[in-house]
Amino acid sequence: MAELILTTFDWVPETPRGYVRDLRVRWALEEAGLPYRVESVPFTPRNAEHFAHQPFGQVPWLTDGDISIFESGAILLHLGHRGDTLLPADPRGRSKAVEWLFAALNSVEMAGLPWAIFAFSGYVGETPEWKRLDEFLKGRLTHLEPILAGREWLAGTFSVADIAMADVLRLVDRFDGLATHPACRDYVARAIGRPSFVKAHADQLAHFAAADLSHSDEKS
Amino acid sequence: MAELILTTFDWVPETPRGYVRDLRVRWALEEAGLPYRVESVPFTPRNAEHFAHQPFGQVPWLTDGDISIFESGAILLHLGHRGDTLLPADPRGRSKAVEWLFAALNSVEMAGLPWAIFAFSGYVGETPEWKRLDEFLKGRLTHLEPILAGREWLAGTFSVADIAMADVLRLVDRFDGLATHPACRDYVARAIGRPSFVKAHADQLAHFAAADLSHSDEKS
Repeated sequence: MAELILTTFDWVPETPRGYVRDLRVRWALEEAGLPYRVESVPFTPRNAEHFAHQPFGQVPWLTDGDISIFESGAILLHLGHRGDTLLPADPRGRSKAVEWLFAALNSVEMAGLPWAIFAFSGYVGETPEWKRLDEFLKGRLTHLEPILAGREWLAGTFSVADIAMADVLRLVDRFDGLATHPACRDYVARAIGRPSFVKAHADQLAHFAAADLSHSDEKS
Repeated sequence: MAELILTTFDWVPETPRGYVRDLRVRWALEEAGLPYRVESVPFTPRNAEHFAHQPFGQVPWLTDGDISIFESGAILLHLGHRGDTLLPADPRGRSKAVEWLFAALNSVEMAGLPWAIFAFSGYVGETPEWKRLDEFLKGRLTHLEPILAGREWLAGTFSVADIAMADVLRLVDRFDGLATHPACRDYVARAIGRPSFVKAHADQLAHFAAADLSHSDEKS
């Protein structure tokens, strides 16, 4: 099989560290035991080659031989199909994992990310705008809560759906959005307790910390 | 092959008509020439069987033999794999269509839907909240614009990615959010001019209009 190369930024500010989406891909690669190499592109300025791989100027992307893939969901699905550790082998289980992968990104993150942006920006309180986004998110969590109370992982066994969902909920939890949804919070704790998450997270932090060092070398 | 059954609401209010997400599935089924049947569940109240198929209490879901799938993105992908009209046959083209499907739902709709909710609710103007969401959406459209100016369809040939992206952008266009992005608007026009969209859209409107008639019959 071709070498897998994960590309992320060379450096990011403190705030997003530990939450940059290359984490989802690192986590999946660690879970699957697939060897990979990490490459970097400048956080700024973003050049034409970057946009050729990732049309929105974001990260990550993955190259697998002559195929270059952007969108963390598409990368997770691609890696899922490379082995049998990230997607169930039976068609029903596989279908379940795929629908939950989309649910994480299109039903839950679509509510959770704008909510987190508002929480981070301090747009929190009594305004109708905040209440509308909060209601949007809470509507999703209310339905998710009994599901996550009743099963360990979304598709029976741990899959790419859990990598996406746990990472989406982890961002909400960062701004204390899971306080009234304990099963969602327990699920996040369960997921991020896995050795593959711990390694992926530490590797992301180390990657950006190393960039700090080389930046300060240049300055000295 | 098993019979395909698409389930949607029996009725919805006027505003969402033409935009209920069963449209994406109808459109794909029409493009692929796959025979299907439409079934209905009550808009209200939503019962346990509904939640068993769609854990967030939304629509649509699709049953294909003993597999029941929710999330429009997952359904589109499932239908894409059933034939060769909705996904390119070659691995690179297929990968491209899948990444753009995720991009439509996770990069563009994640900005576009909250924006449309705010526009619909009248939360438009000079508030920092509106400006933040507007900036989030415009950031995505700015990168999409040259891409859609340079190609007819996202993955070369028409695919499920275009069904998702055009439907996502169509909602933004409804609230005039594409005014400064003519290539995005032309792309929507191109997509919704396809006979399969026209039929799917008319079928959805007719489905809900028929419910109005039967509701008024009950009352008379």
